[in-house]
Amino acid sequence: MQRRKFLKTLGAGAAAGAAVPFLSTASAQETITWDMVTSWPKNFPALGTGANDFAARIERLSGGRMKVRVHGAGELVPAMEVFDAVGEGTAQMGHSASYYWRGKTLASQFFTAVPFGMNTTETNAWLYHGGGLELWDEVYAKHNLKPFPVGNTGTQMAGWFKKEINSLEDMQGLKLRLPGLAGEAMNGIGVTTVNTPGSEIFTSLQTGVLDAADWVGPYNDLAFGLHQVAKYYYTSAWNEPSAILEGTVNLEAWNALPDDLKAVVSEAAMASNLAMISEFAVRNAEALDTLVSEHGVELRTFPDEVLEALYASSQEVLEKQVEADEESRKVYDSYTAFQQKVRRFTDVGEFAYLKTREKVGV
Amino acid sequence: MQRRKFLKTLGAGAAAGAAVPFLSTASAQETITWDMVTSWPKNFPALGTGANDFAARIERLSGGRMKVRVHGAGELVPAMEVFDAVGEGTAQMGHSASYYWRGKTLASQFFTAVPFGMNTTETNAWLYHGGGLELWDEVYAKHNLKPFPVGNTGTQMAGWFKKEINSLEDMQGLKLRLPGLAGEAMNGIGVTTVNTPGSEIFTSLQTGVLDAADWVGPYNDLAFGLHQVAKYYYTSAWNEPSAILEGTVNLEAWNALPDDLKAVVSEAAMASNLAMISEFAVRNAEALDTLVSEHGVELRTFPDEVLEALYASSQEVLEKQVEADEESRKVYDSYTAFQQKVRRFTDVGEFAYLKTREKVGV
Repeated sequence: MQRRKFLKTLGAGAAAGAAVPFLSTASAQETITWDMVTSWPKNFPALGTGANDFAARIERLSGGRMKVRVHGAGELVPAMEVFDAVGEGTAQMGHSASYYWRGKTLASQFFTAVPFGMNTTETNAWLYHGGGLELWDEVYAKHNLKPFPVGNTGTQMAGWFKKEINSLEDMQGLKLRLPGLAGEAMNGIGVTTVNTPGSEIFTSLQTGVLDAADWVGPYNDLAFGLHQVAKYYYTSAWNEPSAILEGTVNLEAWNALPDDLKAVVSEAAMASNLAMISEFAVRNAEALDTLVSEHGVELRTFPDEVLEALYASSQEVLEKQVEADEESRKVYDSYTAFQQKVRRFTDVGEFAYLKTREKVGV
Repeated sequence: MQRRKFLKTLGAGAAAGAAVPFLSTASAQETITWDMVTSWPKNFPALGTGANDFAARIERLSGGRMKVRVHGAGELVPAMEVFDAVGEGTAQMGHSASYYWRGKTLASQFFTAVPFGMNTTETNAWLYHGGGLELWDEVYAKHNLKPFPVGNTGTQMAGWFKKEINSLEDMQGLKLRLPGLAGEAMNGIGVTTVNTPGSEIFTSLQTGVLDAADWVGPYNDLAFGLHQVAKYYYTSAWNEPSAILEGTVNLEAWNALPDDLKAVVSEAAMASNLAMISEFAVRNAEALDTLVSEHGVELRTFPDEVLEALYASSQEVLEKQVEADEESRKVYDSYTAFQQKVRRFTDVGEFAYLKTREKVGV
């Protein structure tokens, strides 16, 4: 049903039998028009606009030989059907986050964020120079997908809380919106986590269905107005010290591209990655200022005992997953070995410098 | 003399009268062959290979329509003549560091590194989303150059010292290799700085002409074998918390490019930037491990009073420069205003996360 409807909207030029218009190597000057489905509202700050940015770079780089039509969540397919839509060729490209697909492949968690894991620079080093991207290719090929890092949110925040958290006791029975593996870690310390859709967070906090909610960071949280329904902003990043945004291409569509257009998609992805990192850094800073000075938001950090308990709990949850899933084991081992190595320089470099800046009063 | 010699080596296809082969819009399928001169030995770790990487991305993205021949320092022009060579069109592209050109334009300092300034992510946010790149375009257009960030070293180290530094007193009269504005800041606290060429650092340390030397970081310093001639590695990054690598294009050659090839160069630059950041993160970590475990290098950090004195001194040096130079004032004001804004999120995000990681014992 959906496929027929989709072919109708494709319009002239689309081969009726094939869901995926390919560029034949014989007709190098033909325009390829692809659809990109996303898990975000159209133009959603940084994430939706990030998809637009990735598409625009592809068009510019290909001199217009490739056109990419970006679709917000729900336009062609719902947010949570992007993975299947691209794998099946309903659309040629996707823009989403891999940990949404834990139901399809547990290993996907590691290609977005890992609690107490690597920061943005360390993560990109793993992807581009540590075998991370090769492993992602391996995991996703089984689902007929070719993946690319197309962005990173940088450090995310721990969430909006209606009451202050002064002890581990204060966390007991709390109703918190936090999906995935991080949610399981929270469950392990006595919290009740709920996977509330983004659009329902505001109302759930307002009515008390939720006591707290984790969304992204200042820029996206301000856009959702969450400060109006929860007073305390916990900034203790633990669950998503960085979070990779995923671009996918239908593997057959990818393989059919000539080499220079493969380079176009791949380089556009890399440029989009750096562009989004840079954008989040400044927009988060501006939004944080707005939240604090204009909206009276109070910044807080979890007590040490909460962070320690979350660390222990998240390690348990991770171990349990990789014990039961060989693919997860393989990716996790690569991830953790790399983290141990690369963080040793983060510590004497980046971390030490930030301490110096604080110490001399910059 | 040099130009005639250069045209001889260009070979067939180069118009004898013009030093710069341009792509005419009428002949879209012609190959453009450009020369890229660099300030590094051919294939020098991360920096020389970074130039190769940038060139290779341009070739791949253009489907071979653009070919870029990379020249190590001294092949076509010496390291310190890259700026002029590209501005004059002796070569179409350059790969270097802007602060080498303080003699041409004082404002160039801010497009490499600023003592106690922004880290890598903050710097890229300023360049791509804070007006930094636009200002760089403005400054460099006057010298017939189009600039691009093509890499970043990440946090650099404070240098190799033959004796331990336990007080500000220990710095008095020290002979230290440290060029540019940072060198001037060191002079302000009683140190004698020398601008020794990279290739002479090893011998100068060995013979005692230098008591200490600042080069780059573990990866490049290991390549120079500096650990063999100085025992203490001071890791207190203060002078180059991040350092931008500069790619330049002769402005006329740039303007003559069709839009899609402009996009090729620009996107290749951005991808090269992220690639180098990622490479330095992992190679520095590996080299640091080698230096410490295989070569017995002892890591140290400057005493607080030294860092505080360096901060005061560097602020004085910066103020003096911008007072006397309007262009510097304009760039510096943009840089510092942006740093004040963006670092507020670094502090509750990246910095806080690294503290958390340390606290829970990851």
